Amino acid sequence: MKKGVMRPGHIQIRVLDMDEALGHYRDLLGLIEVHKDSEGRVYLKGWTEVDKFSVVLREADEPGMDFVGYKVLNNEVLDQLHKELIEFGCKVEEIPAGELDGCGRRIRFDSPTGHMFEIYAEKEQTGKWGVSKVNPEAFPMDLKGMKATRFDHCLLYGPNIAGTIDLFCNVLGFDLAEQVVDDEGTRLAGFLTASMKAHDVAFIEHPEPGKFHHSSYILETWEDVLRAADLISITDTSLDIGPTRHGLTHGKTIYFFDPSGNRTEVFCGGDYHYPDHEPVTWLAKDLGKAIFYHDRQLNERFLSALT
Amino acid sequence: MKKGVMRPGHIQIRVLDMDEALGHYRDLLGLIEVHKDSEGRVYLKGWTEVDKFSVVLREADEPGMDFVGYKVLNNEVLDQLHKELIEFGCKVEEIPAGELDGCGRRIRFDSPTGHMFEIYAEKEQTGKWGVSKVNPEAFPMDLKGMKATRFDHCLLYGPNIAGTIDLFCNVLGFDLAEQVVDDEGTRLAGFLTASMKAHDVAFIEHPEPGKFHHSSYILETWEDVLRAADLISITDTSLDIGPTRHGLTHGKTIYFFDPSGNRTEVFCGGDYHYPDHEPVTWLAKDLGKAIFYHDRQLNERFLSALT
Amino acid sequence: MKKGVMRPGHIQIRVLDMDEALGHYRDLLGLIEVHKDSEGRVYLKGWTEVDKFSVVLREADEPGMDFVGYKVLNNEVLDQLHKELIEFGCKVEEIPAGELDGCGRRIRFDSPTGHMFEIYAEKEQTGKWGVSKVNPEAFPMDLKGMKATRFDHCLLYGPNIAGTIDLFCNVLGFDLAEQVVDDEGTRLAGFLTASMKAHDVAFIEHPEPGKFHHSSYILETWEDVLRAADLISITDTSLDIGPTRHGLTHGKTIYFFDPSGNRTEVFCGGDYHYPDHEPVTWLAKDLGKAIFYHDRQLNERFLSALT
Amino acid sequence: MKKGVMRPGHIQIRVLDMDEALGHYRDLLGLIEVHKDSEGRVYLKGWTEVDKFSVVLREADEPGMDFVGYKVLNNEVLDQLHKELIEFGCKVEEIPAGELDGCGRRIRFDSPTGHMFEIYAEKEQTGKWGVSKVNPEAFPMDLKGMKATRFDHCLLYGPNIAGTIDLFCNVLGFDLAEQVVDDEGTRLAGFLTASMKAHDVAFIEHPEPGKFHHSSYILETWEDVLRAADLISITDTSLDIGPTRHGLTHGKTIYFFDPSGNRTEVFCGGDYHYPDHEPVTWLAKDLGKAIFYHDRQLNERFLSALT
Repeated sequence: MKKGVMRPGHIQIRVLDMDEALGHYRDLLGLIEVHKDSEGRVYLKGWTEVDKFSVVLREADEPGMDFVGYKVLNNEVLDQLHKELIEFGCKVEEIPAGELDGCGRRIRFDSPTGHMFEIYAEKEQTGKWGVSKVNPEAFPMDLKGMKATRFDHCLLYGPNIAGTIDLFCNVLGFDLAEQVVDDEGTRLAGFLTASMKAHDVAFIEHPEPGKFHHSSYILETWEDVLRAADLISITDTSLDIGPTRHGLTHGKTIYFFDPSGNRTEVFCGGDYHYPDHEPVTWLAKDLGKAIFYHDRQLNERFLSALT
Repeated sequence: MKKGVMRPGHIQIRVLDMDEALGHYRDLLGLIEVHKDSEGRVYLKGWTEVDKFSVVLREADEPGMDFVGYKVLNNEVLDQLHKELIEFGCKVEEIPAGELDGCGRRIRFDSPTGHMFEIYAEKEQTGKWGVSKVNPEAFPMDLKGMKATRFDHCLLYGPNIAGTIDLFCNVLGFDLAEQVVDDEGTRLAGFLTASMKAHDVAFIEHPEPGKFHHSSYILETWEDVLRAADLISITDTSLDIGPTRHGLTHGKTIYFFDPSGNRTEVFCGGDYHYPDHEPVTWLAKDLGKAIFYHDRQLNERFLSALT
Repeated sequence: MKKGVMRPGHIQIRVLDMDEALGHYRDLLGLIEVHKDSEGRVYLKGWTEVDKFSVVLREADEPGMDFVGYKVLNNEVLDQLHKELIEFGCKVEEIPAGELDGCGRRIRFDSPTGHMFEIYAEKEQTGKWGVSKVNPEAFPMDLKGMKATRFDHCLLYGPNIAGTIDLFCNVLGFDLAEQVVDDEGTRLAGFLTASMKAHDVAFIEHPEPGKFHHSSYILETWEDVLRAADLISITDTSLDIGPTRHGLTHGKTIYFFDPSGNRTEVFCGGDYHYPDHEPVTWLAKDLGKAIFYHDRQLNERFLSALT
Repeated sequence: MKKGVMRPGHIQIRVLDMDEALGHYRDLLGLIEVHKDSEGRVYLKGWTEVDKFSVVLREADEPGMDFVGYKVLNNEVLDQLHKELIEFGCKVEEIPAGELDGCGRRIRFDSPTGHMFEIYAEKEQTGKWGVSKVNPEAFPMDLKGMKATRFDHCLLYGPNIAGTIDLFCNVLGFDLAEQVVDDEGTRLAGFLTASMKAHDVAFIEHPEPGKFHHSSYILETWEDVLRAADLISITDTSLDIGPTRHGLTHGKTIYFFDPSGNRTEVFCGGDYHYPDHEPVTWLAKDLGKAIFYHDRQLNERFLSALT
């Protein structure tokens, strides 16, 4: 939060069929459905999130990610970063308050990797779902599916991650928490954080711009990751890989696909980071172990199945 | 325990190099090394086992399993089953007390699948390792590696599992707890129990006789299975698959290989069985899910890597 | 199962108000409500139990336990034990099939501690609840509350536990798995098993006959015990003690009260027992640690709050 | 990290006997002993901490806490906060680099509650203990005892917590994450964070100034909390309360005492906080549940056993 960016606040995901998508994000992940807007977009959130929404599903002809938004401390931060984004050379657009129901003015900008991002300072705060603001219980009793607690981060593929990492670190104040470097010292992957989390966003070098690898939601425990795995089988959902652990971040994880082909991760645990920490480094020659700590080899899908 | 067979009491495993094998069974699995006999065989046990030993390692030119032994209630049971094994048509041999140090007289017999088994009534009882007989603590503080608690079962491959299942159920009083059957009703796999455990031994139909798929050791929790997976990576041990869950028995599991190529399983949880329970049935067309509940497909190794 | 007794099959508990009791046993414990008989008794079971029911609630003016029933292998065992119970000197009564809907003929007998027990050989088998008999999933998706998997055992207080232990071991074939003995060698508590479980029934010496300490239901994990504790607070249920571990059996546990004052336990894990194992012994002077392994002292309620 | 304070960086604890204290902090908690200075103070750290040390034990005639230090981003932040602390009215002292071996210049200041705090910008970074900086494994294999991962926070008792909260929030940039308020709106407890953690320090209103309630260390899982509880019993360590959950922060916890009478907490999990979150509020009338979520009543010790 060094320059006032707090956290990933929302992601807009394109889905081919809204009903099927709700079966995935609401019933299986257990996100809370909170709103449908006049354009037909459906808004959801993890139950621990105090803002009104964090995931927006938009029906479209192609799967993928429209944009990810980061919440900043206040309007002064927003204005200052707006200026710096223009100076950096981003194509910057101001989205008026209310374009997403309940969300204030957003500053949208592109990145060298070809993705669209936003920052914003205001969103309606409806509080944690299902528990009281005073004397809150440990959890609501009527959560569904995997009981995802919040939207945590996304992993994006594109060219020139060096440029995007420069943008996030030097304009937005993120830190490089973990990385993969090859023998020449070229960075093939970067995991960036604005907080203590091992990553608030991550990038992997890839020739095609603007690709979406996965959105990720955090669970409480390794038992919850097992339950997620079981629910994936019980609901005959397409599994990518897991349950397993990552080498990078050491998070405990499972990957699977929504009905449109967008990859979803649920995970728990993982490293923490402070701004004075050197980045954790994995070598490209050990990429298999860096990604899948137990298998110590990549499955082909991890590098090629993108939306 | 309907006819007096209590439990799997020991397994003798062939290893190519004893020191490397001890790195696996003692240091990584965390079995307790309790004895070395005059033939150079090393005896080990899980810390919760009250008998002197349960795993015997024998250095040999080829990996595999020499025999599995089951402990029976008393000598009357031993004599009665001895008679019935001969009547069944087994090739039966009596091994005198002391051939394994600390173990009484053993009745060894072959099976239609080409494996060697034993029953015995007496073994020196040294008590649980590292805790007192009076006011025993929850666990000893100096366990190593995966902290395997006991030898649980083994899975064997061979032809005519129908014959071996007949032998175990009708002579030895085991129950068929779980099974895989094909469209013609032929049983391709049988999981047999003498107690409440989902399996005290298991068989899979396979053309080559006398093959050893894995020996299995029980851990306490799914967290322990994760720790086992982590230790497998940290020690650069060859992983087969996991952490995952089985469909059959619903146990939570991981498979890996000892330095000689013998497969080892550690697992936790799983179904329980009583004699009045019908066998749980999985269909051969769903064998992938029956074996690996999350992946829902077999890896080639599971059917072919045998010792 | 040495003499053919398999397991605790049912318990009939007296409750002051059936609706409130269902809030406890069905909604909070998560037992499945399966039947209401013509006398107004409600039948429930844990979802993994294959028999039709295991818990029977009877509305009455006083809380407590009417009887506990054990299922035996078959009618031959039932007849043989019937004879031996009479020889032992029990007051024995035959309850005709159908007195409990779906249950066969029961042999009811009293015990020196003043409790009523039953054995029976037949009960309608409806299979595990919510999963298929073929290719069963890991669990049903719509379990409630604590998701109790099965009725496990009960703990009873009364005088002359020596007599009742004699009855259970020498007539019914149970083994003494764990015990508390004082300096004179007098046994103050006995935990008895017919299987591999640390206890299928337990007794504590107490001057008043026929008292009921608790019925117990098994959960899968220590995470589930935490969730049980949380649900107890969320539902404002009366807590006795926990989450904690027992010294005896080393099970991980929590105790709480139903609205009628009957104590309920949910727990996971714990020691296993085979017939050739010596009983685990705790000293009476260390009773606090034997019962509550972490606190190492009894709360007054544990010895005095009985129904 | 809004004004550049990153985290609790060290705590100096007074102990009556260093050898006994090491038995507690090193062998039981599992902190890593890293240094002994010329004054006989012993330095320790949790294995995940990258700085050289976080816990300093000083032998003294009375138990308690000497000071807690917070690490800031850099020397500019240090100088700016130095100035602001003086303006606030603190008694401020500059401790030269090297007074704690490996630690840079510290700015020490007092607080309305009568405690001593420090900020500093530089400390030798030795990296996580037992794992490589490149391709780090999930954990070192030779951790001891409870395997505490890091020093997390402390809870302090004193008068005028309003003043100290004012100091931490308005000078140091902490946020009030959780609180207890009475019917008149008076704040009886405040949990403050400089990051995403539910608390980096906490205060409870109490007439006597400068009192130390506990230092706290974070574990990974609820299983680890159980293991901590078991180790407390196995080592016959004085237990305060647990395993249980807090209402405030919802952390899962256990409290126990070092041989000098200083209270120690190990815990896992708990709420997260961002600067735009309203404080979570518990009512003073429900203080029992706020502190001990399961028992829903305080034990007397929690309010009176202080050092």
